[in-house]
Amino acid sequence: MTKVLIIVSLIFKIFINNVNGAASDIQLDAKAQSTHIIDSLNLLSYTLLLILTVLTIWLFKHRRFSFIHETGLAVIYGLIVGAIIRYSGSTSQVLNMQVFVDESKYNSSLPPDTLSLHMPKPYSNKNMTFQYVFRNEIDGAQENEIDLKATFDPEIFFNIILPPIIFHAGYSLKRKYFFRNLGAILTFAIIGTTVSSFIVGALMYGCVHLMPPRLANSFTFLDTLYFGALISSTDPLTILAIFNDLNVDVNLYALVFGESVLNDAVAIVLSGSIQHYGKRYQLGTGGFEIKAFFQAVGDFCGIFMLSLLIGAVMGCITALLTKYTRVRDFPLLESALFVLMSYSTFLIAEASDLTGVVAVLFCGICQAHYTYNNLSEDSRIRTKQMFELLNFLAENFIFSYIGVSMFTFPKHHFDPLFILTGFICAAVGRAANVYPLSFLLNLGRRPKIPLNFQHMLFFAGLRGAMSFALAIRNTRSEARQAMLTTTSLIVIITVIIQGGATMNLLRWLNIPLGNDEETEALSQNGLHSGNTTPRNEWNEPFGEPEAPKPNEKAVLARIWGSFDTKYMKPLLTHSKPTLLETLPVCCNPLARLLTTTEQLTQPINAISGHQV
Amino acid sequence: MTKVLIIVSLIFKIFINNVNGAASDIQLDAKAQSTHIIDSLNLLSYTLLLILTVLTIWLFKHRRFSFIHETGLAVIYGLIVGAIIRYSGSTSQVLNMQVFVDESKYNSSLPPDTLSLHMPKPYSNKNMTFQYVFRNEIDGAQENEIDLKATFDPEIFFNIILPPIIFHAGYSLKRKYFFRNLGAILTFAIIGTTVSSFIVGALMYGCVHLMPPRLANSFTFLDTLYFGALISSTDPLTILAIFNDLNVDVNLYALVFGESVLNDAVAIVLSGSIQHYGKRYQLGTGGFEIKAFFQAVGDFCGIFMLSLLIGAVMGCITALLTKYTRVRDFPLLESALFVLMSYSTFLIAEASDLTGVVAVLFCGICQAHYTYNNLSEDSRIRTKQMFELLNFLAENFIFSYIGVSMFTFPKHHFDPLFILTGFICAAVGRAANVYPLSFLLNLGRRPKIPLNFQHMLFFAGLRGAMSFALAIRNTRSEARQAMLTTTSLIVIITVIIQGGATMNLLRWLNIPLGNDEETEALSQNGLHSGNTTPRNEWNEPFGEPEAPKPNEKAVLARIWGSFDTKYMKPLLTHSKPTLLETLPVCCNPLARLLTTTEQLTQPINAISGHQV
Repeated sequence: MTKVLIIVSLIFKIFINNVNGAASDIQLDAKAQSTHIIDSLNLLSYTLLLILTVLTIWLFKHRRFSFIHETGLAVIYGLIVGAIIRYSGSTSQVLNMQVFVDESKYNSSLPPDTLSLHMPKPYSNKNMTFQYVFRNEIDGAQENEIDLKATFDPEIFFNIILPPIIFHAGYSLKRKYFFRNLGAILTFAIIGTTVSSFIVGALMYGCVHLMPPRLANSFTFLDTLYFGALISSTDPLTILAIFNDLNVDVNLYALVFGESVLNDAVAIVLSGSIQHYGKRYQLGTGGFEIKAFFQAVGDFCGIFMLSLLIGAVMGCITALLTKYTRVRDFPLLESALFVLMSYSTFLIAEASDLTGVVAVLFCGICQAHYTYNNLSEDSRIRTKQMFELLNFLAENFIFSYIGVSMFTFPKHHFDPLFILTGFICAAVGRAANVYPLSFLLNLGRRPKIPLNFQHMLFFAGLRGAMSFALAIRNTRSEARQAMLTTTSLIVIITVIIQGGATMNLLRWLNIPLGNDEETEALSQNGLHSGNTTPRNEWNEPFGEPEAPKPNEKAVLARIWGSFDTKYMKPLLTHSKPTLLETLPVCCNPLARLLTTTEQLTQPINAISGHQV
Repeated sequence: MTKVLIIVSLIFKIFINNVNGAASDIQLDAKAQSTHIIDSLNLLSYTLLLILTVLTIWLFKHRRFSFIHETGLAVIYGLIVGAIIRYSGSTSQVLNMQVFVDESKYNSSLPPDTLSLHMPKPYSNKNMTFQYVFRNEIDGAQENEIDLKATFDPEIFFNIILPPIIFHAGYSLKRKYFFRNLGAILTFAIIGTTVSSFIVGALMYGCVHLMPPRLANSFTFLDTLYFGALISSTDPLTILAIFNDLNVDVNLYALVFGESVLNDAVAIVLSGSIQHYGKRYQLGTGGFEIKAFFQAVGDFCGIFMLSLLIGAVMGCITALLTKYTRVRDFPLLESALFVLMSYSTFLIAEASDLTGVVAVLFCGICQAHYTYNNLSEDSRIRTKQMFELLNFLAENFIFSYIGVSMFTFPKHHFDPLFILTGFICAAVGRAANVYPLSFLLNLGRRPKIPLNFQHMLFFAGLRGAMSFALAIRNTRSEARQAMLTTTSLIVIITVIIQGGATMNLLRWLNIPLGNDEETEALSQNGLHSGNTTPRNEWNEPFGEPEAPKPNEKAVLARIWGSFDTKYMKPLLTHSKPTLLETLPVCCNPLARLLTTTEQLTQPINAISGHQV
C-alpha cells in the first residue's frame, strides 16, 4: 500500500517535471509536496507497525501466550518490514549535486552553516536561489549511497525518544525498595558498569588484534572502550514485565530495575567522557595521556554530578512551586507546569553541555519522591498515565526502529567474527560486573544476595534502547559501523531469546514466585520488613516508614533517610514532622514561614499523599 | 540568562576555532555542539515562557482576575520576550556561503535534494565532505539577512502543533448541542466562511488598488483571496472559556464552538484550493480561467470530503477494533491503540495529498461519538486528560510564538495602511458571514437566533492559531509578508481586546448567564429540551435520547440521527437497540454476528458508556 503511494507520488512528480522545461514555483511546490508525502509515509509505516504490535500483543495476552514481550514483538515486526522495504527495491533516490569551496571568497576554516545555491536562467525561468542547511559530515567516497529510506537522524533518540523513557523510569521507581538496596544498586550501576566497560574494551581490543589485519587496523583502543561503555548499559524491560506478572521477590526486582535505570545514565556519561578523552588525545602533542586520562575522569564525575544536580534541583523547585502555590486547584495548569518543568530540566542540561538524559532521570526521581505528594489527585493520575503511555510508545518505537534499521540503515557493516566476539565479550563483561561485586557486597550486606539471584542478575543483562542509541549516534568510521551492527544484533538476540527464556530460568533457579511482600521478607533470611502495604507503590500511602532498622539499611541509606525525613520532606512536601519540630529552635521564624497550614492541621499519621 | 549562555557558547566556539588553523573533527564536533546548544536554548526560552504563563494565569485565577485568558497572556509574554531578543542585539550570525550550479554537470531542472560540499586541504587537515539538505527557496537579494533566531519551520504548525489542537476540538465537542444545531453550524462554517473569504478578498483587492502603486502592484487578486480565506477562520478560545465559566446558553456555546471548529477545516482546504487555482492559472496559457475555477471548486469539495471520509473511516475502524476485541482488558494497550490510530489518520491523509488537519478533526468527532463508549474507564480518563494537556500546551505554545515572532521572524513587512485595511475588511467579512446568514436561518429555524446572539457571534470572531499558521506558511513575496504581519496583529489584538471585553459585552447584550440547561431551554422561545443531564457531557451517560423532536431538529439532523441510532451505534458501540432489532429480518445472521453479548445482556436503559 505505502509502496503504491510512493510510486504514484513519484510518477506525479515526474509528470509535473516534464510539463515545463524550466523549474517553476509549481515544480518546487510539487517537490516539497513529494518530500512531505515520503516523510508522512515513513512515519506512517512505523505507526502501522506499532498498531500491529499492539494488536498482536493484545492477542497474545488474551490467549495467555506470555513468552514474548511487546518490545520483542516490535523488533520482530520491524525486521520483517525492514526486509520488505530493503528488497522491494523502491527507487526513491536522492538527487545530489557536488559543489566545491571557492577558495578566493570563503575564509573560515569551518564549513558554512548554510549554502545558497544560485540557479541562473537556463535552469529556471527566473534567477532562483535556494537555501541548504548543514546536515553532517559524510565520507566523500560513499556519497552516491545516500539513501534515506525509513531512517531518522540518530539525534532524535537523545532529544525525543529517550527522555520520556528515562523520565518515566525515574518517575515510576519503586522508591522504598530502591532506597533499601541503594548501596548494592549504586555499586552495580557505577562501579560495575565502569568495570564492565573496561573489561569489554580491553578484551575486544585484544581479540580484534588477533583477527585479520584489515579489521585490526581500523579499531583503536578508544573505539573498543566506547563499545564497552555502550554495551554495558542494560535494559531488562522484558524481564521486569515478567517479574511484575509473577510477583517475583521485590528486592530482586529493585536490584534489576535500579541497576538498569542508573547504568543507562552511567553509560551515556562514560561514553561521552571517552569521546572527550579521544579529542584531547588527538589535540595533545603526545605524552599528555595521563593528563587527558584524569581530565576524562574529571569529565565523567563532573558531568554526572552536575546533571544529577540540575535534575534534582529542578525536581525540588517543582515541589516547592506545587507546595507553596495553590496551583493544584487548577489541575490542568498543575499538570502543564509539571510537564514543562520536567522538560525544561532536559533542555537546561543540554544547553549547559551536560547530559539531559541523566538530568531527567534524577528529576523524575525527585518528582516522584517529593512533587507527587503535593499534586492534586487529578494531576497524579494524569501525569502518571501520560508518561506511562509516552514510555510505551517511545519504547516500542525504538525497538521497531532497531528491527527496521537492520535492513534500511545504510551504514551497517557485517563482520561475523567481530559480531561473535562482541557477543562473548558482552557476556563476560556482564559476569565481571555481577559476580565479583555480589561477592564483595555479600561481605558487608545482611540480607545477602543469594547465588540464584546473582545468576538472575547476570541473565537480566539484556541490552536495549540506550546501547542502540549510543551506537547509531556516530557511524563515521568502519569500526563504528561494525559496532552498530554488533550492538543491534546483541539487542535483538538478547531481547528475544533471553526475554523468552526468563520464565523457564526463574523456575530452574528456584526463585520464589507469587510472593507478596510479607513472604518475600521471610524468604530473605527471616527478616521481616514489617510492611503489609499493597505491592503497587503508586496506590500506596506515600510516607515510607523511614525509621532506620539497623540491620537492614546501609549506613549511607540511613544517613540520607534521616536527613530526608527531617529536612527535605518537611520542606518540599506537606508531610510531618514539620520543620518546626526538626529545625533547631533558633530557626523557628524561618521554619514557621516554610510550614503550611496543611502540614500543621493534619493528624500525625495522615500522610500528605492522601490530601487532595 | 539564556543570552549569557549563548554568548558563552559563542566565545567557546570562537576559542575552539582559533586553537588550530584548519578544521578538524574537534572543531566540527564543537560546531555541532554549539548548534545543539542554541537549539536547546531556543526551545528552553519557549518552555520558560510557558512556565511563566502558567504561573501567572494561576495567580490571576487565584485572585479572580478573569479579564485575560492564558492564550492572551502567552501572546503578551511572547511579545515582551521577542522584543528583548530583537533589541538585545545578539550576534548569532549564520555563516553562509554562495555556490553556483555547474552547468556542465548538472542536468535536472529542479534544485538538488542535497549538496555535497568538498573542502580540500587548505581548509582542513584532510579532504572533507559535508552534506547539506534542501530547506527552501530564498530571495536572492535578502540572503544576508538570514537569521534564524527563535524561529521554527512553519510546517511544524501543520505537522506537530495543530493536529492535537484540532483533534481535541473534535474529541471534546459537546455532541448533543452540536448535532442539534448542525444546520446552523454548517451554514455558518461552510457557506459563511466561503462568503466571508470572497468578500474580504474582493474588498482588500479594491482597497489595495486605491493605495500607492508600489503596494497595489505587488498584490494579485489571488493573494487577497488567500488572505480572505485565512482570516475567515475563527478561534474563540478566550470567549469559550468565559462562556464555560459563566454557564452561558448552551446553544450559543454550540454555535460559537461548532462554527470555529469547522471553519478551521474549511479555511485550510479553501486556502489550499486557492493556491492550486493559482498554479493552474499560471500553467494555463490564458483563457482557461473558468476551467481552472471549476477545478478549484472541485479541489475544494474533493479534498474536504475525502479528508472527512478518511477521518470518519479511521474513527469507525477504531470503534470496531475496540468493540470486537477485548483490548480494553489492557487499558495501556487500548490507549496506545487509540493514539496510534488517530495519529495514523493524520499521516494517511497527508500521505494521500489531502488535509491531515481536517481528517483528524472528523476522526476526533467519531472517536468521541463511537469509540469513547467502548473504551475502558481508564482509557477514557487517560485519552481525555492527555489530549486536554497536549491541547493546552500546543495552544499556548503557538500563541507565545505569535508574540515572539512579531519581533524575531525575519519576514515581516509593516505597512500601516494595509494593516488598517486588513482590520476593517476582517470585521466586514465577519459581519457578512453572521448577519445575513442568521436572517436566512431564522426564516426556517424554530428556536430563532436572537439579535443579541448574532452580535455575540459577530464578536466571537477572534482569529487564532489557524490564521497565523496559514499566513506564516508562505512568505516568499512582499505581499505575503504584509499579510503575515497583518494577520499576526489581528490575532494579537482580537485575542487581547475582544477576549478582555467579552464579560462586559455579555452583560451589555443581556445574554442570560448562569443557566443550567433547563432554564436555557426555557429562555429559547419556551421550548423544553426535556433533558436534565449535567452540563459536562463527558460525565454524562452517553446515549442522547435521539428520538427526534420535530420542532427542534432540522430535517438533515433528524435523518442522520435516526440512521445513527438504528445502524451506526449498534454496529460500532455496545448500545441498544441492537442490529437484531433494527436490521430487516433477512439480515439476521449478519446482525447476530455483529451483536456482542454485552449488547444483548444489558438492560434497555443501561447505556453502554457505563459498562467497564
